[in-house]
Amino acid sequence: MNIVELIKKKRDGKSLDKDEIKFLIDEFTAKRIPDYQFSAFLMAAFLRGMNKTETAALTNSMLYSGEVVDLSEIPGKKIDKHSTGGVGDKTSLILAPIVAAAGVKVPMISGRGLGHTGGTLDKLESIPGFKTNVSLKRYKKLIAKHGLALIGQTKEIAPADKRIYALRDVTGTVEAIPFITASIMSKKLAEGAEGFVFDVKTGSGAFMKKLNDAKTLARSLVSVSKKFRKKAVAFITDMNEPLGNYIGNWLEVYESLLVLQGEYVYNLSELSELLAGAMIWLGGKAKSVDEGIYVAKEMISSGKAFDKFLEIAEAQGADISYLKKPEKYPKAKITEKIYADKSGYLKSVNNYELGMASLELGAGRLKAEDKIDPKAGIIFHAKIGDKIKKGTLLAELFTDDETKIETAKVRITKSLDFSKEKVNKVKLIKTTIK
Amino acid sequence: MNIVELIKKKRDGKSLDKDEIKFLIDEFTAKRIPDYQFSAFLMAAFLRGMNKTETAALTNSMLYSGEVVDLSEIPGKKIDKHSTGGVGDKTSLILAPIVAAAGVKVPMISGRGLGHTGGTLDKLESIPGFKTNVSLKRYKKLIAKHGLALIGQTKEIAPADKRIYALRDVTGTVEAIPFITASIMSKKLAEGAEGFVFDVKTGSGAFMKKLNDAKTLARSLVSVSKKFRKKAVAFITDMNEPLGNYIGNWLEVYESLLVLQGEYVYNLSELSELLAGAMIWLGGKAKSVDEGIYVAKEMISSGKAFDKFLEIAEAQGADISYLKKPEKYPKAKITEKIYADKSGYLKSVNNYELGMASLELGAGRLKAEDKIDPKAGIIFHAKIGDKIKKGTLLAELFTDDETKIETAKVRITKSLDFSKEKVNKVKLIKTTIK
Repeated sequence: MNIVELIKKKRDGKSLDKDEIKFLIDEFTAKRIPDYQFSAFLMAAFLRGMNKTETAALTNSMLYSGEVVDLSEIPGKKIDKHSTGGVGDKTSLILAPIVAAAGVKVPMISGRGLGHTGGTLDKLESIPGFKTNVSLKRYKKLIAKHGLALIGQTKEIAPADKRIYALRDVTGTVEAIPFITASIMSKKLAEGAEGFVFDVKTGSGAFMKKLNDAKTLARSLVSVSKKFRKKAVAFITDMNEPLGNYIGNWLEVYESLLVLQGEYVYNLSELSELLAGAMIWLGGKAKSVDEGIYVAKEMISSGKAFDKFLEIAEAQGADISYLKKPEKYPKAKITEKIYADKSGYLKSVNNYELGMASLELGAGRLKAEDKIDPKAGIIFHAKIGDKIKKGTLLAELFTDDETKIETAKVRITKSLDFSKEKVNKVKLIKTTIK
Repeated sequence: MNIVELIKKKRDGKSLDKDEIKFLIDEFTAKRIPDYQFSAFLMAAFLRGMNKTETAALTNSMLYSGEVVDLSEIPGKKIDKHSTGGVGDKTSLILAPIVAAAGVKVPMISGRGLGHTGGTLDKLESIPGFKTNVSLKRYKKLIAKHGLALIGQTKEIAPADKRIYALRDVTGTVEAIPFITASIMSKKLAEGAEGFVFDVKTGSGAFMKKLNDAKTLARSLVSVSKKFRKKAVAFITDMNEPLGNYIGNWLEVYESLLVLQGEYVYNLSELSELLAGAMIWLGGKAKSVDEGIYVAKEMISSGKAFDKFLEIAEAQGADISYLKKPEKYPKAKITEKIYADKSGYLKSVNNYELGMASLELGAGRLKAEDKIDPKAGIIFHAKIGDKIKKGTLLAELFTDDETKIETAKVRITKSLDFSKEKVNKVKLIKTTIK
């Protein structure tokens, strides 16, 4: 096969077959296709698109560039969740123990935060001692023994994805749906799960700002899952304001503990229960999503979900005294409060700006090698539609770096838009795609 | 400026401004933008297109990546011709001395053949002693003294073009009209000419197989010329069969000598006179193209054009005894003849295949470093529309390499299509774009 001919074929809007896609991915991963040719192909694929069959073939080639875990010897259904990422999105920490407590296995391999969104790994690692850097052998043992594992991507998993993503990042081709799909699915399929719940975010704090783009991605994820004979359901959910009130790594662990212990947190509780309910349903432990939600609530009220979280945290090396008594966790050196300077209804939040403010306070990273501060972040008290009086506490900022406070304050203040007229609450679940 | 943002801007179909294009070209030429980013930009520009202003800016940046010759101290108008290349296209060798003999200066910097088309430089260099590798200083002196110069591209001329073309070649982005335009124009504008006649070929032996693509390119070339305040006219001309009968380097020099000495050669004579006439008109030595054609014919019949060719050849180091007595030129070791195996009208020629057959016999090169045999090539006797009897001589093949004969014979035979019904002659000049 000739690489230039394949580039031209895609450039001219034609479909590539399985073998052609396999050739492209295998040869690029093996460094036999130079970056400058692959990036021309990426741009052609970005602008010409790839159909469902091509996207599945792309996923398949990327999946088999590395190891694919076989969990078939472990009894029970294995179901995972994937979210496209957002601000304050700590649902993984809540739903994984709920679902495992309900008897469905949760093989969860997560990523780090980059840019304005947080990452599950960083949140877990803010718990003293919690180890996410775990071998695939140990990963299987954790699932067999505890019903779940919360680990980071090992280098054996889909190495092609890492190499392709690095090139997409510097060539303006990140936002292509087929590549986003193949990147997500090649890693998820390698985990060994039998079904997936997708949480595709839309709104100002999401990667897919537009609802239609989110729907296209959701359909693509469900379609590829089905081509691989996996069960799948996708929810398009709101990311126009944070999930819950806490943003930042330890802050989000703290809020997860509240929810796991039965406290109701606006939008976070609903979404965690919905996603957990869907996983329980896909895992065969409920006859419908609604019944799954009922089971999920029971796992919380019975204390079983919280216990499961302590169990897996301990198994992965955490000092769980911090989870039992979060007040003993070190505090940020500086706390700054933002109060409303006028009265009105909160009309909109630029949620991306909130995420960036949290990042600047120390909770996130702009470059992969940046260090994060687990204590840093924001508690954001207001919700869209809230009637707010002048002088109300809107947000609390936490950081060890005094120089960051002012920009973060300005960012947050500018990100808020108030209205004199009544404003409706945001609809959390936009639509479901099966 | 951020390269990824510029790639995304073009990817999303927006126009780039002058400074953005200058940044891209300057930084890429200086190797501060890596190939993998520039190739993503090339593909985005290929698929999204570039408007006239962008194409002119691209040309300008590529032009000023190198030296721009100033011929203003030489009196008289300087006019050049550019052809997009074809099979048997030796018009440059004929029209340059005609136009110079008519008193219009001809500053001609030509290229080598690559693929199925020949190059003026290779043809000139088949004349023993003829030197095309000449400094820009000597180039100016030749024009001042003889009224023309026939040289090769020096490394000072548009270095950006060389680097960009090399990347286009391996990334499936050669056929983009804005880049073809900028590549041609940056080199032509560097020559110091004040006007251009473009011969844009269309048909089976042309790069632009489709008439509409040829028209788009012709309009783009004329538009950019005018943006640089140059006079310009473009002719879309036929390349469905060879120009004249001779294909191959010395063979084409030989046929050019015939035309310069007054022999009429079907389609080659007309086209050479038309292009020369247009140059004479642009150069102010005739009031119309038709009057220019009349002057051109006079330059031939008076012997002035032939004398001018001998003069410049001698000035550039040639042993002109070969031009005066071409029969003393060495002959190819092998001559093979192809005869018609049936009667009928010649309906079509795959002219690309004729070019490739000539290349294989030794007249051309597939890679830039391939050696060529100046004696090799084809005399192709048939023209579309000719009534041909079984047994008529269709073509003569010349080569030193016996192993090449059989494939070339098959290629040529397969490239011809005969019809029992009468077939019209091909229309040589499709349209004119001013």
